Amino acid sequence: MEGVEDSLRLIKRGSDELLIEAELVEKLKSGRPLRIKAGFDPTAPDLHLGHTVLINKLRHFQDLGHQILFLIGDFTGMIGDPTGKNVTRPPLSREQIGENARTYQEQVFKILDPARTEICFNSTWFDGLGAAGMIKLAAQHTVARMLERDDFSKRYAGGQPIAIHEFLYPLCQGYDSVAMKADVELGGTDQKFNLLVGRELQKHYGQSPQCILMMPLLEGLDGTNKMSKSLGNYIGINEPAREIFGKVMSISDQLMWRYYDLLSFLPDSHVAGLKNEVAAGRNPRDVKVLLAQELVARFHDRKAADDALAEFEARFRQGVLPDDLPEVALDNGGVPMALVQVLKQAGLTASTSEALRMIEQGGVRANGEKVADKAVVVPVGEAVVLQVGKRKFARVTVN
Amino acid sequence: MEGVEDSLRLIKRGSDELLIEAELVEKLKSGRPLRIKAGFDPTAPDLHLGHTVLINKLRHFQDLGHQILFLIGDFTGMIGDPTGKNVTRPPLSREQIGENARTYQEQVFKILDPARTEICFNSTWFDGLGAAGMIKLAAQHTVARMLERDDFSKRYAGGQPIAIHEFLYPLCQGYDSVAMKADVELGGTDQKFNLLVGRELQKHYGQSPQCILMMPLLEGLDGTNKMSKSLGNYIGINEPAREIFGKVMSISDQLMWRYYDLLSFLPDSHVAGLKNEVAAGRNPRDVKVLLAQELVARFHDRKAADDALAEFEARFRQGVLPDDLPEVALDNGGVPMALVQVLKQAGLTASTSEALRMIEQGGVRANGEKVADKAVVVPVGEAVVLQVGKRKFARVTVN
Repeated sequence: MEGVEDSLRLIKRGSDELLIEAELVEKLKSGRPLRIKAGFDPTAPDLHLGHTVLINKLRHFQDLGHQILFLIGDFTGMIGDPTGKNVTRPPLSREQIGENARTYQEQVFKILDPARTEICFNSTWFDGLGAAGMIKLAAQHTVARMLERDDFSKRYAGGQPIAIHEFLYPLCQGYDSVAMKADVELGGTDQKFNLLVGRELQKHYGQSPQCILMMPLLEGLDGTNKMSKSLGNYIGINEPAREIFGKVMSISDQLMWRYYDLLSFLPDSHVAGLKNEVAAGRNPRDVKVLLAQELVARFHDRKAADDALAEFEARFRQGVLPDDLPEVALDNGGVPMALVQVLKQAGLTASTSEALRMIEQGGVRANGEKVADKAVVVPVGEAVVLQVGKRKFARVTVN
Repeated sequence: MEGVEDSLRLIKRGSDELLIEAELVEKLKSGRPLRIKAGFDPTAPDLHLGHTVLINKLRHFQDLGHQILFLIGDFTGMIGDPTGKNVTRPPLSREQIGENARTYQEQVFKILDPARTEICFNSTWFDGLGAAGMIKLAAQHTVARMLERDDFSKRYAGGQPIAIHEFLYPLCQGYDSVAMKADVELGGTDQKFNLLVGRELQKHYGQSPQCILMMPLLEGLDGTNKMSKSLGNYIGINEPAREIFGKVMSISDQLMWRYYDLLSFLPDSHVAGLKNEVAAGRNPRDVKVLLAQELVARFHDRKAADDALAEFEARFRQGVLPDDLPEVALDNGGVPMALVQVLKQAGLTASTSEALRMIEQGGVRANGEKVADKAVVVPVGEAVVLQVGKRKFARVTVN
């Protein structure tokens, strides 16, 4: 069973938890293509690298010959989970759903093989389920067990309202697994409870329960918070090559290795080699360039990756970006900060008036580009490489 | 507003609680026919006097010119409330529903005027609601508020399972009020929570909230437990005239007044007069006969009532039932007891062998009829007038 062991190693790489390994081994031993489920929110089809951690894992399964069921939760999307809000979202129109599905496909097929990917919509089975079917589904779980879910128990204990329909969300997600006959479901570690409900419902419906593979959440560019659009610390997979390249180059060396683990398709042995080289004195910036190029090539192409590198180097040609760029984090209560304030507080200028003067004289660069607008503000959560004159540099993040 | 006051007095007669009286007064003042809702379980169309307490109240509303909405819960019936069981009942077939509706109508139209009664089925609106509609409905209430319902809070605190679909029942019952645009809903006192959910949902849907009129639960023939088929202490409205008459005659004098309050259509003043007469020495048995006749006339006709009285009297002709019939309650752990044991324990015979001998000699009567079978048993919860020889009598209940 050498093959199964290799498969299992690839499947587990970078994952947080696998339930239940022995069951997955049995499924792998069967030799048949497994049905691998992953669900996505229909309202946010603009994917960033955080989403791709899971999609990359789907790709691993695909490389092992399994069938990907890419579920767009157009029905469950109207419930919201966990919202903490006593409202439902209006259901999406058929047009919106179709449009979002197209957007998803455009993006995920940069990673997945369309030939082994089935795009599913859970409205397919829920539209016909009826109010009666929903009631039967709700009969499959108890209030007490639902209240054991971590966020529910906290909210209940804290006197925060939980709307009853929020209890229906995990059941609907679980029923998706029944309808899709999933062998394995992938999800974030925050999804554990819901993923387990799927197992139970499958048993109830006479199916062999799905295995659950939980992937970690990817940190954003700030290295601390979960990558998310609302925090602004993300790299969108539809961003221009130059943006992706620049953002990857802006991350800390430590975060770079995390991104290698979760985002790179290089073999483990290759990544280990790079770590050894850096430990032996190789400039980590060179290794970061390799990651930036791999990601640009994935979401654009090889030529775009080479061009982005050339442009990035050209931008910094005059500046000669130092190897030991100082890192500065400025706490501004989560609101953007005027660049002149940033320059002063980061110690790049002595005062805001000096900062204003330097901008007027064309002596300030942000990510290698000359700043012309004195009123420009630095957004929250996004590292920016700032340069004043020839020699003063810092990588600054406003928080 | 003399008329409104009179109406309110009739409406409140025998009721337990009215919410909210000032709102009902406003509705009555409008002069329009109000929409009066009462819901019934589709699986138990065999009505007894306990059910008629509420139907009588519907009749009062009808007499005041209002429209009765007699709701057969064919959709909610499959949920069950409060079941305490983690199951749903299979939905009834269209044939069963139609059959049950016919059975209901046959029975309730002995009390209600068909011209002012609309028979409704809640599948009418729930079949089209869909899983999505059920989720939206579930969004209207919180888990914490639902757990405030007395039986839910007890079960939750006691570690007894509550299935999530049980939370949907009160919401469905409340949504019925929305769909029916109910002005008033009638229910048992045990329904208070669910009835209040209806008020809230109506407000949410922009309707004026229904008033709630709660009727007490009727005690069964034993005078203690709620009248129910499973306890055997009931008078079914489809029973033969002679049974209804005999069972009414078997109740205690105290219970008789309770039945007058909740079951008789005699004016208050008339009932007060009867009470005075009994207090002044009139034989309560004569007053019980009046009640028995009123009920037989309602569910059969006047002639049947007269015949039942004549037959009842004939049965006791030889026995000359004494006015001060001793009441005996025998505790047998809720199981029926052999008549010979009953006779002995009630002190009507000295021993079971004497009891056997008396039966053999034709000297034992039960409810006026000669007992021929020595192996006969006395059921639980049903008062039986027993007579041994010419002079020994007792009204015995086995519990």
